[in-house]
Formats: sequence, structure tokens, C-alpha cells
Amino acid sequence: MQIAIVQLNYKIGDFDNNYAKIETQIKKLSQKADLIIFSELCLSGYYPMDLIDQPSFVETQNTYLKKIEQLTDDLKTSVVIGFIDKNQEKGKPFHNSLCLISHGKRLFTYHKRLLPVYNIFDEARHFAPGKLPGIYQFQNIKIGFLICEDGWAGADYLYEGDPVDDLSNSNLDLIVSINGSPSNIGKQTERIHHFSNIAKRCHASLIFCNQVGANDDIVFDGTSFVVDKEGLLQGCLAQFKEDTALISIQQKKMVLTGFNSYIKPSDAELFYQQTLLGLQDYIQKCGFKKVVLGVSGGIDSAITLALAVKAIGHENVLALAMPSRYSSASSLQDAKALCDIFNVALTPVSIEEEFTLCLAQFEKAFHEKPLPLTEQNIQARLRGRILMEYSNQTGALVLSTGNKSELSVGYTTLYGDMTGGFNLIGDLYKTQVYELVRYFNQIHPNTPIPAAIIHKIPSAELAPNQKDSDTLPEYEILDPILKIYIEGDLLTHEEYQQYKKLIANLSPQLIQRIHKMVDSAEFKRRQSAPIVRVQRRAFGYGRQLPIAATYPKN
Amino acid sequence: MQIAIVQLNYKIGDFDNNYAKIETQIKKLSQKADLIIFSELCLSGYYPMDLIDQPSFVETQNTYLKKIEQLTDDLKTSVVIGFIDKNQEKGKPFHNSLCLISHGKRLFTYHKRLLPVYNIFDEARHFAPGKLPGIYQFQNIKIGFLICEDGWAGADYLYEGDPVDDLSNSNLDLIVSINGSPSNIGKQTERIHHFSNIAKRCHASLIFCNQVGANDDIVFDGTSFVVDKEGLLQGCLAQFKEDTALISIQQKKMVLTGFNSYIKPSDAELFYQQTLLGLQDYIQKCGFKKVVLGVSGGIDSAITLALAVKAIGHENVLALAMPSRYSSASSLQDAKALCDIFNVALTPVSIEEEFTLCLAQFEKAFHEKPLPLTEQNIQARLRGRILMEYSNQTGALVLSTGNKSELSVGYTTLYGDMTGGFNLIGDLYKTQVYELVRYFNQIHPNTPIPAAIIHKIPSAELAPNQKDSDTLPEYEILDPILKIYIEGDLLTHEEYQQYKKLIANLSPQLIQRIHKMVDSAEFKRRQSAPIVRVQRRAFGYGRQLPIAATYPKN
Repeated sequence: MQIAIVQLNYKIGDFDNNYAKIETQIKKLSQKADLIIFSELCLSGYYPMDLIDQPSFVETQNTYLKKIEQLTDDLKTSVVIGFIDKNQEKGKPFHNSLCLISHGKRLFTYHKRLLPVYNIFDEARHFAPGKLPGIYQFQNIKIGFLICEDGWAGADYLYEGDPVDDLSNSNLDLIVSINGSPSNIGKQTERIHHFSNIAKRCHASLIFCNQVGANDDIVFDGTSFVVDKEGLLQGCLAQFKEDTALISIQQKKMVLTGFNSYIKPSDAELFYQQTLLGLQDYIQKCGFKKVVLGVSGGIDSAITLALAVKAIGHENVLALAMPSRYSSASSLQDAKALCDIFNVALTPVSIEEEFTLCLAQFEKAFHEKPLPLTEQNIQARLRGRILMEYSNQTGALVLSTGNKSELSVGYTTLYGDMTGGFNLIGDLYKTQVYELVRYFNQIHPNTPIPAAIIHKIPSAELAPNQKDSDTLPEYEILDPILKIYIEGDLLTHEEYQQYKKLIANLSPQLIQRIHKMVDSAEFKRRQSAPIVRVQRRAFGYGRQLPIAATYPKN
Repeated sequence: MQIAIVQLNYKIGDFDNNYAKIETQIKKLSQKADLIIFSELCLSGYYPMDLIDQPSFVETQNTYLKKIEQLTDDLKTSVVIGFIDKNQEKGKPFHNSLCLISHGKRLFTYHKRLLPVYNIFDEARHFAPGKLPGIYQFQNIKIGFLICEDGWAGADYLYEGDPVDDLSNSNLDLIVSINGSPSNIGKQTERIHHFSNIAKRCHASLIFCNQVGANDDIVFDGTSFVVDKEGLLQGCLAQFKEDTALISIQQKKMVLTGFNSYIKPSDAELFYQQTLLGLQDYIQKCGFKKVVLGVSGGIDSAITLALAVKAIGHENVLALAMPSRYSSASSLQDAKALCDIFNVALTPVSIEEEFTLCLAQFEKAFHEKPLPLTEQNIQARLRGRILMEYSNQTGALVLSTGNKSELSVGYTTLYGDMTGGFNLIGDLYKTQVYELVRYFNQIHPNTPIPAAIIHKIPSAELAPNQKDSDTLPEYEILDPILKIYIEGDLLTHEEYQQYKKLIANLSPQLIQRIHKMVDSAEFKRRQSAPIVRVQRRAFGYGRQLPIAATYPKN
């Protein structure tokens, strides 16, 4: 028997487009494959959020599901499709389901049994859990089905039952897990280990079929894979790209065609792939053509520009340099050198004259001099507005360039440097931004981010001779404090110990001061643009906190 | 037996403060009451969101729970307290629970069985559901316990089981429901009807104990109440205020002390009470002293100013008038008249000079004239920045003044008029803003919002002779379209028909154009300040939608 795995990039709610992609693959693979496997909620894209509850959403999906049924009518191939099914019993109105379609008919339907409600996931908001194991005898092989979270009962998040238990004593030939499994640091390897164990537990080969592509802040890496019944990895589909591959199962032996071997991405490679795909898909799925960003001569805007050029081409990126009296002489030079390397048009717009006017205007209106904080924020907000002028004029998407260290402690200006429709590096701590830049320069030696930008001392340049370290501890210290505070519970024991060691000698007062800064900046993050999620816990839906609250001491 | 109901305003995570309030009431009521009932999660405040998962959160709560136990040691009174309990079995690590404490000991614990995961609620994110009915014989009365959602199984959101069924055949004397039940249009009456039916079904009197106060965008009205076993409402506690009251149960007859009769608030009264309390609590719980807002001479900023004055006093409100070349002559006059009536300091800051500079600067930088949209947004953003200057300088909270009609269709400028830390009227459609203003003028005849402001034609005044109706249909038509699109599924049949009738003659093209505007503005709302929730569905956590998506046609 020939089985095809199809790993595609779907757009949420775009049934026309998603169906067309699925149709193309079915037609293409129908001669080769007896069974074609698509990923979780592939017709709607994962995850449609409250669109699911819109009156026409599931109805519309069903017309396309019908088309797939009709398509298979004359074909010898069968397909497994993830879709939203109606719940006929009590509970939430829908199931997160899969069906096996053959010759125009749904032969088998399975409803996801474990619904994740943690971090970015909120599936119990829309779905009722299924109650029955998903076992189906397809021709000469006995298949056990899982949908994503169904495989994770034994991990960090405890459920009452474990769907894998029901598969483990069923003499299966094959387990098929369809997924909408997002990427973050460490996820690829964790997933393979985890599902290898499932294959071993069930004495069955296992196919893990994932989607690829980014939807808003969430990036899916694909990296679908196959393990044998000993739990040994047989091969992978592409990482961060659409891909298909074929498995031939003959007398319980597997032969794989079109697979890659798995190479664990380094953290820096993951940062690169993930931010790049995140940007590409946000631009493409929202219908933008161009982006604009402010380049300060600093490293955050430099890597954002570099990624934007790799994502959509230099001709679609515009850089604005907006110096003030506090910009160092080298800042504009560095910005120019950067734009030269990447062949990006650089438009200088000095904020000096307007800044001067603002200061005078302020004194006139309020009869006092602006405080240093007021002055600093004025500059950041002038720059934000100028970026938005260009955006309003041309339809270009403004990229904001704050990193996670800054956003964590609130070292950032609302409506100033936080201005923008999308942020590539907002889930990278500052030290990780450097890691990403080093990696970028390795793989793009002809378009390197200049050493001058990498080696300069971090500064917002909003006051005379200002340095980040005037206000914050060095990033080598700050970042581990933040990492432990924001996602300590999600780190492995080793990671946790490693970060803990880095801050072992710090005073509890310093650590508490940083925690308090993180807590107090919640109101700023609530108004942030979507940020490409990279870490185990990112700001946004993955971390939901009140603003008007007292945070107990940590 | 004497039972006290305690309806207090808690601050999320502020265990010190919450415990102090609880302690005061226990001491005060201990001579009069055999049992004192507090609301859901009263120690932590409802709803702490992901704070629950912070390592020290539940531990800290437990030290205060211990203090309550110790407090009751020498007292004759017992107390019912809502708290977060540890889950000892599989599943999420905590329960949303109540316990009955008597003479220093927990006599009885009950875990909430139905966990709401819809609209603003996400309790399955943190809690495991309880499995057992909550029935306890306290002295000579048999009490059945419910926690909030436990009472709502039969309503719109279907669950597999119904905790009320388990109470209905148990020969109860009394049902005690502790709640964190937010207020929105229609909720007070709906709640009373609903729990009256529960009392009838169970042939038992019922006490509904709610919290009061606002936490970020969510306002709790209190309105705790008692119904007899025939389901007849016996009395209410205060609406939108802290309150306590006593019930004496003798030979199954109830005597009530300190109760009010229930008066259904009109929609306008609810708008008023809810926005007022929302603002008061956000200011107080975040530690602000003052607010600042832009007054345009329009109705949205006028009612926001009026509410702010009623919430924190005229001396704590500063108004900025920021006219441009497109401001009508009467705008500044109207703003002045408004501020005179409310005795609010008005600081004029003309944006004209800076606007002129921006236009010139734009042409110089980009070699073309700014488009009308660009020009309009520049003005809005200059105003936003000036408000933030004052905020940075003084620590005043900026109030943004966009209404729900504008926010729905995106007739609003990011970082411009959307600037602000909090929005009072962002969940009121424009026609409801007028309703609120009429009500305000009725109850505050000495400080009325001037007729000139009420009767002027709505305009953003960002272009020559601009009117809202140049871009949008009249609000009498727009608002019902929006109401049905955004919360049609939550309306009663009568409401739905009523709104439907108002738009019956409109072309489907117009309605679809409006829907598309709502869909396209999702990216703006994602960066909005918290908005006081008033309707059944508000923007924010109550309506979670993707940005990069295709919305199927409606």
C-alpha cells in the first residue's frame, strides 16, 4: 500500500484557496497513492478561532468537503482530511475531526479527544471532545488515528484519559496523527521523541502529518515524519516549506520516497526560519506588497531589515532614518552602510525641527519644561508617526523592531517604537537577537549585517550619551532573569538549571525589581502588534494576565 | 439561623487587601450571623487569569485562607469562601472551589463542576472540573452549593451534565450559589429569572452571592439576591456597590434585613453605572490619580469627560483642546462650554503649526503630497502624542474616546484617537452614546452635556466639511447592522427581530460592505486599550479572531 503525506500552507478561512491546494495534490498523487493524508483542520486552516462560530463558517467548509468527496468518486485513492464536524450530542456545537473519504463516501470519522486549553491553545472554546478511539481497518492495514493533542496526554498537561492507551493494545499496523503543531525552540526534536515513544508503546509504525506556514503570530514548521514500530525515525518532510512524500508499506515493511533525514535546527536557525516564514506569510495572507521600517543603526532594526529583504526582496523594503540631536554621528552612517549592503532605499527624515517645535509647544501649553521621559517619548513617537505616514500613503506594512527583553521590562514607547503592524523579533531576547545576527551573517556572507552595528553598545539614543545599561542590567544577566520569570515552568530541568546558574550571584532585590518591571509593563504589551512566536511562551494569547492587579512577590 | 451575604469589591492578586476586607466583614457580622457567604474566588479576586499558574500565587492565597481559618477559631460564625484549591487527581492542577469554615476548620469543600470556556471566560485553562454534587448539612439546614456556571447548564451553552439536576432531588432547604458574574445589558434580569427557576426546580430557597467592582474591562454589578423556594424574588443587594445583608431562616421561613427590591436598570442606566465603576476601579486599582483626554466638541469626548468628572472629581480631570484648520469654529467653543459646566481645566494646544510642518516635511522626504487619508491620520496622531506628553509628564491616565461603531468599522486612527490606556465608551454603539448622554443629563440636570454638542452632526473634523456620513451609513442604520454581525447569536429572539427590522430594506451589498469593514479592522482593535465591557460580546478576549484570514461571506 502506498500512502502520501501532504504538508501544505493553508490560509485561515480561505476555503477556495485551501480546497484548490488540496485538490491539486489529490489529483497529482491519485495515481501513486492508495491513501493521501492531510493535516488537522486543513480545509479551514488551523486555527480559525471564533470564526468557527460564525453562522456560515462550517456550512461553507462543508460545501468544500463535499467537493472533495465528489473528487474522489472516480479515483482509486482515498484521503484523510481534517475538518470541523457538527457535534450531534450535548456540549460545544462542533468537533475537531478527521474523516477517511473513499470513492465519494466518508467511510470513517474520528473526533479529537484531548482539546488543549493552555498557552496559545483554546480548543475547548469551540469543540466538544470525542469519546471513542479512532481505529479503522483500511484495506489490509489496521490504522489508529490521533489528532495532535491526542498524543500528548502523558506530557506536561495532564488529562483524565490517554487516547494512546486505547491504541496500544489494538494490534495496529499503523498510527496516523494529523496535526496543527506550532514550532518553537526545541519543538521539532521534542515532537519526534514523543511520537517515537508512542510508536514503540503501540508496536506500530507512525505517520505524523503537520501543516506548514504562519498564521498571525503562530508559525508551523511542517517537519512531518515517519517512525517505525521500534520508534526509529525513518525520515522527515521539509522544515518550514510545503512538501509531500510517499510511504510504501509492503508486508509490514516500509519503503520511503521523497523524505529527508532529520537535522535538528540550531536555535539560531530556528529563529531565522521562523521569523522569515512568519513575515512572508503575514504579508502574503494580509495582502501587503511592501514594508517600511525605521533604521536606527542599531542591531534590532538591522536584523529586521535583513529578514524583510530575504522575505520579500529589497525592492519591497523601505528604510527611514530619523535622526535627532541625540543620534550619534555613526548612527546614520551605520544605517546607510546597512541599506547599501542590502540594496534598500533609505529615506532620511530628520525629526530635529519637529522635536524642537514639540518642546517649545509643550512649554507654551503646560508652562513647564518636559521631563526627560517626556522628551524621550516624544522622539520615539515622532518616528512612529512618520512611519505611519508612509504606511498610510503607500499601503506598506510598518515593521516594529522591539525585542523581547525590551518588551518584557517596558523599555519601549507605546505609539513610538512599538508602532507597527507586525514584529519579527519581539519574541527574541536581546542576546538571541545577536545569536540570530551571527547566524544570518554565516549563511549570507555576501550581505552581512555590518560589524559596526553588531559591536556598538546598545542605546535608544533618546538622551545625551544614553546606554541601555543605564537603566537595565547587562543583557547577559537580564535575559536569564526574564527567561526564568516568563517561561521558567516550560523549560527542561537542564535549561532551567543553566539559566539559574547565570543569575546565581545576583541580589534578590535586583531580580525582584526586574520582575516588577515586567509586571508593570503589561499595559504596553496589551497594545502591541502581533509578534512572531518563537519561545515556548510568547506575549499575546500565550500569556494572559490582568493589568489592574497586584502581582504576588516572586 | 442567620445568614449574611457579603458583596465586596476585590482587587486581583491583592491578597492583603482582599483578606483585610473579608476579615472586617467577618468580625463585624460574627455576632449576628451563623454563616457568612462570600463570592467566587474572593481571596484572589475574579479572574486572576494566568497569575494562577505563577508559582507563588496559590501558595500565597493559602496563607490567607489559613488566616481566615484561624480567625474563625473563637467565633461562633462559620464562613463560605471561594478559593483556588489544589487538584489532587489527574487534569489541570487546580479547582475553582468553595469551602465552609467553622471554628478554625474546613468542614466541607466543593469544586466547581462546569467551567465556562466562551466569550470572556476561559476557566478550563486553569481548572479541572469537580465531579461531585455540593450538598452539606449545616446545623439544621441542608444546603446545596453551586459556583456560578454550575447554574447555567441548561442555558445557551450546553454541558454534558447539569449540577442542578443533582440538587433537585435532594430535599434541600437552601441553595447557595457563589459567583463572579459580570454585568452586561440584560444580565441582571436574566440572572434572577434563571436562578428563580433553579429554586423552583429544587424546591429550595436560593442565595445568589456576587462580587462587585471592575477588573480591567470586566465590570461586576453585585446585585446579589435571594429567591424563595417558589422562585419568587425576595430582595437584592445594591447594584454596582459593596453591600451586605442578612437573612433569617426560621422554620423554613425567611426574614430579610438590609435588602432592596430589584429595579431593572434601563440600558442607559446600566451604561452609566458600568462605565463609571469601570473607570473608578481601573484608576484606583492601577494607582492613577488623574486622567487626561482630548475634547473635540463632539459627543464621545464630552460624555467621557462627564463620566470622568463623576468618577474622580473635576480637579483630577484635564481636558486638552487641539484644534486644527479643519476644526469648525464652534468646536472649541463647545469644548470650552463643556469644561465650564464641569469645572474642568481646559488647555488649548493648537496642532496647526506642527501639522503644517508635517505636511512640508512629508513632501520634502517623499517627494509627493500626502493623500487625504495620510493627512487625516497625521492630525489624529499629533493629538494622540500631545495627550501622551501630558501623561508622561504627570502620570495621568489618557482616556481614549472611540465608540463601538467606530471601532467596529475601523473609523479610527491607530496611535491617533485610539491613543490611551483605557476606553469607557468603546463598547457602546454611537446611538447608545446618545442614549447615555440623554440619561446623564436627566440625572445630572445641573451639569448637563450641552445641547449644541448633542445636536451637532457627527464629524471627525480631519478634512474640510467632513461628516461621518460621508463614509458610513447613518448610525441608526449602521448600529443594527453591527449589532447583528457582532453579537447576533447572543441576542434574544425579540431583540434579534427588532434589529433585523431596522435593516430590512437595506441592500445586501451595503450590509456586506459593512461586514467587510469590520473584518478588515481587526488589526486595529488588536492594539486597542482595554474597553469597559457593556454588551453581551465586546471586543477583546470576548471576541478572538485571526487577522491574516479570509472571512467567509455572510
